[in-house]
Amino acid sequence: MPEIYYYTLEQFDHEGDSMAKRLAIGVDLGGTNVRVALGDAEGNILERSAERTEKSRGPEGISEQIKRMINSILTGKIDLREVCGIGIGSAGPLDIKGGGLMKPTNLPFDFVPLVKPLEEKFNLPTHLLNDCVAAVMGEKYFGLGKDCENLVYVTISTGIGGGAYVDGHLLIGKDGNAHEIGHFTIDFEGRLICGCGKKGHWEAYCSGSGIPNYAKLLIEEGLGKVEGSHLVEEIRKSGFTGVTAKTIYDHAKAGDKVAEKIVEGIGFLNAIGFACVVDAYDPELITVGGSITLNNPDLVINPIKRYIIEHARNRLPKIALTPLGEDAVLYGAMASTLYGRK
Amino acid sequence: MPEIYYYTLEQFDHEGDSMAKRLAIGVDLGGTNVRVALGDAEGNILERSAERTEKSRGPEGISEQIKRMINSILTGKIDLREVCGIGIGSAGPLDIKGGGLMKPTNLPFDFVPLVKPLEEKFNLPTHLLNDCVAAVMGEKYFGLGKDCENLVYVTISTGIGGGAYVDGHLLIGKDGNAHEIGHFTIDFEGRLICGCGKKGHWEAYCSGSGIPNYAKLLIEEGLGKVEGSHLVEEIRKSGFTGVTAKTIYDHAKAGDKVAEKIVEGIGFLNAIGFACVVDAYDPELITVGGSITLNNPDLVINPIKRYIIEHARNRLPKIALTPLGEDAVLYGAMASTLYGRK
Repeated sequence: MPEIYYYTLEQFDHEGDSMAKRLAIGVDLGGTNVRVALGDAEGNILERSAERTEKSRGPEGISEQIKRMINSILTGKIDLREVCGIGIGSAGPLDIKGGGLMKPTNLPFDFVPLVKPLEEKFNLPTHLLNDCVAAVMGEKYFGLGKDCENLVYVTISTGIGGGAYVDGHLLIGKDGNAHEIGHFTIDFEGRLICGCGKKGHWEAYCSGSGIPNYAKLLIEEGLGKVEGSHLVEEIRKSGFTGVTAKTIYDHAKAGDKVAEKIVEGIGFLNAIGFACVVDAYDPELITVGGSITLNNPDLVINPIKRYIIEHARNRLPKIALTPLGEDAVLYGAMASTLYGRK
Repeated sequence: MPEIYYYTLEQFDHEGDSMAKRLAIGVDLGGTNVRVALGDAEGNILERSAERTEKSRGPEGISEQIKRMINSILTGKIDLREVCGIGIGSAGPLDIKGGGLMKPTNLPFDFVPLVKPLEEKFNLPTHLLNDCVAAVMGEKYFGLGKDCENLVYVTISTGIGGGAYVDGHLLIGKDGNAHEIGHFTIDFEGRLICGCGKKGHWEAYCSGSGIPNYAKLLIEEGLGKVEGSHLVEEIRKSGFTGVTAKTIYDHAKAGDKVAEKIVEGIGFLNAIGFACVVDAYDPELITVGGSITLNNPDLVINPIKRYIIEHARNRLPKIALTPLGEDAVLYGAMASTLYGRK
């Protein structure tokens, strides 16, 4: 668990005097992009920077890149004494004790050191947390969850993940994984295989990487018989290789009947996943983010709202698009530094 | 949340002097049986009583029965000043504010008052909690969970339910239902209907009330073609009406091949439910109780241990039979009084 640092909260003066301030640096480290921001306790982002993740210079290349990016948003503008710490949100698996990533799924390295190099460079308390845990903290402190004691954040992106507060307590678990909701088994016949290698998981059907496989399954089971579908024509010409989640949602938006049915099918399964979340954590609010959701908010969220009553036993929570957009993890990384993990 | 009462802990003297003691009364109120016990902080049950639940004298008949039972275990033996309070564990839905049961599933009343009548009668702090929440408290304070911060108790009985500690925090949720694990949807095709009216829930296949339906489904899908099965013969003669979970487990114990396959199928689905529990709460220990488990411990737990690796993403916890047997709720009701809900 990271320590909690309290600093005197004073009006931020962007011109930069040298009084103690309550600012934090947040880092969102993903397999594709790394983003860095400087923000205050009210959730104002004062400076930011984003780059493609540097994978060609070895594991140390990543911390070098983050150091350089933090420097660029600080140089000449901010006195480091105004900053209370650095929070890093990253997809795991995390090695919290070692302060880095342990054989990360989306980076080709055995160990990526993060905490030590940044601490040495900036002499600021630095800590690492799971990206979905960060995101729900972002929602709690800077998003829709400010008044919620029972709150879940769900991301539907390349994978499906979540973070949860129950009774105001941020769930961690024995290894920090008390929120692996994308791996709930929703199909006991296990038709599709998940990225983790197991069968029948929610993520295998409804994540960015799962959706093309689920579309294939539905079309092979008879959905493709609908005449006049551009999607089916495209697949007939060049096979399933070029089909992505984007292809399917774009065709659905254009009124393609087969794509619409696939999107409805995905929504039905998402509703089952959300129902499991409702029965596991009994939240009053679920916010939804991740690239698939952010690019298709109505097509993703409306079917969930329509179908969830068919599966959830507990009283339904509000379900809403996160207002934090792509910055949920970044906000959470800053919140964890400003407020501690609580 | 119930208040926490601390009393001086002194050696219990069964002969009964009048010094302050740390004893508690626990009540396990079920649709079939009601059980009452007096225990100490070390988990010794000093007096106990069990009866069939009195359903013929209206909702007040239930609290009258509990009052009489508590009286019978106290009279002439214990000074009430030695007792710090009364805890009642009951199947819901609970009306915590009203101190009773609100349209309980297994009792034919709109409201069953519990807290007020007992408080008035004994002048002791009295509180009510969900039976599965009580059971996991029993495991934490008096069972296998003493050193566990991340602990789940699963009951497989008429229904399937659970209670969970994550990071030492007992999960409650917005309405007190952050543990409705029996209602996880494991079959998105929804072949069987759950007691709650929704389709495809774990409980619809693997609980005491669900097992006969799942057996029917499996036999109709072709399992019944195995020759020489006494179970299938019995069903051929008198239909499915007489088939219970007990029938099936008893035939499996006697070596009936069809019953063995059904038990294996139930175990496979239980493993999926347990995998969802592992990925939701990331526990280090899951203890298992409930009548189906207690009557068939090896046939229930061994297949779960065998199959769970096929579905869980998180590192597996220990899975063990509760040592508290049928008294898990009773122990938890006492623990909640002695230690508070924490």
